[in-house]
Amino acid sequence: VTLASLDELAMDAARAELDRKTKPRGSLGRLEELAVKLAGIHGPGAPRFAAVVAAADHGYAEESVSAYPAEVTRQMLLNFAAGGAAVCGLARVAGAELVVVDAGVREPVELAAVRSARIGAGTRNATQGPAMTRAQALRALDAGHELASGLDGVTAIALGDMGIANSTAAAALHAALLGVPASDVCGPGTGLDERGVRHKAQVVERALAANSPLGDDPVDVLAALGGFEIAFLAGVALGASATHKAVVLDGFIVCAAALVAARLEPSCIGFMIASHLSPEPGHRLGLDALGLRPLLDLELRLGEGTGAVLALPLLRAARAILSEMATFEQAGVTDAGR
Amino acid sequence: VTLASLDELAMDAARAELDRKTKPRGSLGRLEELAVKLAGIHGPGAPRFAAVVAAADHGYAEESVSAYPAEVTRQMLLNFAAGGAAVCGLARVAGAELVVVDAGVREPVELAAVRSARIGAGTRNATQGPAMTRAQALRALDAGHELASGLDGVTAIALGDMGIANSTAAAALHAALLGVPASDVCGPGTGLDERGVRHKAQVVERALAANSPLGDDPVDVLAALGGFEIAFLAGVALGASATHKAVVLDGFIVCAAALVAARLEPSCIGFMIASHLSPEPGHRLGLDALGLRPLLDLELRLGEGTGAVLALPLLRAARAILSEMATFEQAGVTDAGR
Repeated sequence: VTLASLDELAMDAARAELDRKTKPRGSLGRLEELAVKLAGIHGPGAPRFAAVVAAADHGYAEESVSAYPAEVTRQMLLNFAAGGAAVCGLARVAGAELVVVDAGVREPVELAAVRSARIGAGTRNATQGPAMTRAQALRALDAGHELASGLDGVTAIALGDMGIANSTAAAALHAALLGVPASDVCGPGTGLDERGVRHKAQVVERALAANSPLGDDPVDVLAALGGFEIAFLAGVALGASATHKAVVLDGFIVCAAALVAARLEPSCIGFMIASHLSPEPGHRLGLDALGLRPLLDLELRLGEGTGAVLALPLLRAARAILSEMATFEQAGVTDAGR
Repeated sequence: VTLASLDELAMDAARAELDRKTKPRGSLGRLEELAVKLAGIHGPGAPRFAAVVAAADHGYAEESVSAYPAEVTRQMLLNFAAGGAAVCGLARVAGAELVVVDAGVREPVELAAVRSARIGAGTRNATQGPAMTRAQALRALDAGHELASGLDGVTAIALGDMGIANSTAAAALHAALLGVPASDVCGPGTGLDERGVRHKAQVVERALAANSPLGDDPVDVLAALGGFEIAFLAGVALGASATHKAVVLDGFIVCAAALVAARLEPSCIGFMIASHLSPEPGHRLGLDALGLRPLLDLELRLGEGTGAVLALPLLRAARAILSEMATFEQAGVTDAGR
């Protein structure tokens, strides 16, 4: 893993520049903080966005933890490729290039619009042992790292996921990595009722028990509780931060990937931006563990990176206050706040 | 005042269409609510945005209620015209046409980039009687109404304000229209300390006393406690809703204009969208009175319409999920949530 750190000098320069702009100091609140962070991540370059949406199938689906059947993962991958899914339109209006990845759906999708990074034909059922091998987890991390590193000229990558039953995988990873009970991090996902949520928590407890003891190595935890797209997205987060790109998180599933990446390389947290707060109960716990505060609270619970691409215009706006505003001196405005 | 109402049939059709799209029902949360609201406001047309920023001077400035001297109003008007203010860059990246209005700064600004709708050379000091005459208030309302009505093809207008001491006028209007004490609605504005905030509340109390009894006519309340730009923006809200355009509110000062408009014509509330929650304590009270929930919480306290234009990409995104997403049927995705 390549180490990367924020450019503190660039951040200081951005703070000083913001204080010369024609506005009371700090009056653009969190937009100014975002402008400073982006300066530290990638410097003064104009924003260029990509959205990486990775899809994979999950052995957890055998445990009836989703309102949708497993074949929907592949159907939605085709929908991403055809431009009909929510994230497609939202990425388009946000000006983000959409990169669709098959990280391991059950049946391969052979389409030019889908990048293949297949680690397997879906994970195994983690209630019966590891979801994937350690070698598979490492391969997925590498593939994500490579994809993110190769997105030349991109300044921010929005992360998105698709995978029927993946909120169960995300819950298991949150429970294991944060050391909290399954019931604290299990929610309705895309549409379970209360009974379904209780069942999901039991499935997570069984997966944790079947893989006990988990140990401290985050790759082993990832392999045990898994999700190929989660592993791939953790790699994207690592590759993006290593190559000085902002990592724009989506909801609960992407947060699981972020927690894995942060455990592997804590410095990558500085490159992360939390786009939105999901109603999924574990999401806030995950973001708190990362020390990140979400920009939006729109009660989104779709995934696909929809929340992440919705936040991209705020990154463009944060950059614009640095690049487009006049200073007090340039505009001849009295600076009473000096 | 022309009455306007939301198109309930269009809203029902939008709800039904959203439920056919390839996503769990309701999973795009408040973005779906926004899409439905916009369908009711202006129908299926592609979004086209304007930002109307009105500036004026205030007699309250004589009472030392701002961290900035009164001449900054005119300096900032010139900065808007030159494109150097925060709202200029933010409007540009949001794709909004910027309309800059002189609603009554002390010295006129004669520039092609500034529309003149001057009601006077700043308001009078409301601690000594009405800030403006009833005729002036009506003239400002009309001018705003006319400007908004004339923005052909525009689907949403972001409202912005500039005026040294105008958070004092906004506080007085909130106190009078909501029936709350001045101390509940006075905050630091662009940078007062605690002592300054207490002084501002006393100035508001004096303005309320000097104009007592205020009566129930919102035009009289507006004239007494005033602000030419606030009156003008109330007119913009009325004209926009009368011509089926969304009214995107900014912070505390624009909220005062919205309260006046809502008192004059309650149906216009349906056309309003609250962009952000300001840290100014009265803002939440004002939005609660309007029954509006803000989209963003970024601790913005600049005004100028900066929060309103920051929310415009969410309007574009809300429209995109209706116009660009495939249905379950079109995409061949299994609809388990039916």
